[in-house]
Amino acid sequence: MRYCRIEHVGGPAWGLIDGEVIRLMDGSPLDNGLPGKTEIALEKAIFLPPIVPPVFYAVGLNYRGHVEHALATGYRAAKLPDRPEVGYRANNALTGHRSPIVRPAGVHGRFEAEPEVVAVIARTVKNCSWGEARESVFGWTIGNDVSAREWQNADRTFWRSKNADTFKPMGPWIETDVDPLAQTTTVRVDGEVKAEFATGAMIFDPYEYIVETTKYITLHPGDVLWMGADASVPMEPGNVVDIEISGIGVLSNPVLAED
Amino acid sequence: MRYCRIEHVGGPAWGLIDGEVIRLMDGSPLDNGLPGKTEIALEKAIFLPPIVPPVFYAVGLNYRGHVEHALATGYRAAKLPDRPEVGYRANNALTGHRSPIVRPAGVHGRFEAEPEVVAVIARTVKNCSWGEARESVFGWTIGNDVSAREWQNADRTFWRSKNADTFKPMGPWIETDVDPLAQTTTVRVDGEVKAEFATGAMIFDPYEYIVETTKYITLHPGDVLWMGADASVPMEPGNVVDIEISGIGVLSNPVLAED
Repeated sequence: MRYCRIEHVGGPAWGLIDGEVIRLMDGSPLDNGLPGKTEIALEKAIFLPPIVPPVFYAVGLNYRGHVEHALATGYRAAKLPDRPEVGYRANNALTGHRSPIVRPAGVHGRFEAEPEVVAVIARTVKNCSWGEARESVFGWTIGNDVSAREWQNADRTFWRSKNADTFKPMGPWIETDVDPLAQTTTVRVDGEVKAEFATGAMIFDPYEYIVETTKYITLHPGDVLWMGADASVPMEPGNVVDIEISGIGVLSNPVLAED
Repeated sequence: MRYCRIEHVGGPAWGLIDGEVIRLMDGSPLDNGLPGKTEIALEKAIFLPPIVPPVFYAVGLNYRGHVEHALATGYRAAKLPDRPEVGYRANNALTGHRSPIVRPAGVHGRFEAEPEVVAVIARTVKNCSWGEARESVFGWTIGNDVSAREWQNADRTFWRSKNADTFKPMGPWIETDVDPLAQTTTVRVDGEVKAEFATGAMIFDPYEYIVETTKYITLHPGDVLWMGADASVPMEPGNVVDIEISGIGVLSNPVLAED
């Protein structure tokens, strides 16, 4: 099943994708919401982030190639992780499929897309096994971990380099019936393929992250875990950036300059 | 006014503190909720964190003494900040006044309380002046930025050193009529004063943080900004840790060992 959140009569509404239409639901599918009879054309929908998480987890360095690229381009803190350790991103930065990524006026230098597969947690989980971790995932979506590299190098935290408004596009929807580790991630800028990698070529898989995290931390329904990227793709205002993960869909966002 | 959140018939309820009782409200005071006639004795209330923020901002190093202490005790990343840069904590770790801080079985070495004053944001804020930043704060509460120092030094992020379950007590309530910069913060362990400092002796004040943050980031109603600590106080299972900020109240939590 594919579930989305869209804007409808001024508020957010859950929807079930059904071919070329979205069937509006009476609540969240994480809370047993069910589709009703109202249909919205997929082409006309205003997509919101498919979930607003209680906690927004992100894995910084989880593909070998990305760590090497980060080191080669001056990000001092990069090294191959020896344990699955989560980090965080912030909800203010979330935006939906088709909404603009706005490059702030103060951003200079490399401004890049990072294509990530995202796990959406279904239930409360603490101290779980790898099998229970698998069962704890509701579905999968796509994230673009937009990064302003000069800020990332200059700042003490990722507060503005990765969490400025609109820097976290997520969507277009949550796919519940896919093995994310068997997919391919492709990034296109203005229709041209700029990067392609095996989504599953991770250093630690999502379930290993969930097992390790939940030794100390309770995960809750709607929490998201962004799984890291194996590529960084330069963007600039005027571009349209598409991230496709086979079996899930295409997250597409135009890039605008602030003012 | 003092607003709290308590457990009531199995769910969270907002309350207005009125002497020795809490008057239950019909909604959040951030959303024009009003008190009704039901009263709960303050002494018997089960306090929840007074807010669950959309984004949980925290200021790492904002008092001169704390930076020097951190350096002296081996936290390599400590240095005096030259700009107000926010970091993040995670909602899973929140717990309320009187609820236990649970020290995980894997924690060894220094396990410490950090007493912090907390700003609760009232409204949507972007690109604001210092005066508008002042107007954007709904009220003030108290946070204990519980920290497991061996993990803090060993890990790539603060994921378990500062965000393990129960590591972020917050409360007891939100006080709307206080100047936090004119107060005194006191930490007591089992009734004995262990630290005391001027709450306002910050390197950057809360309004400077809000001005700088909102150049890039929209703050939303209910967001919290933990303002850092000028002291670290060792704790161990069996202790009761009280953080008092004059004009706000006392946040009190017992410390337990995980099974």
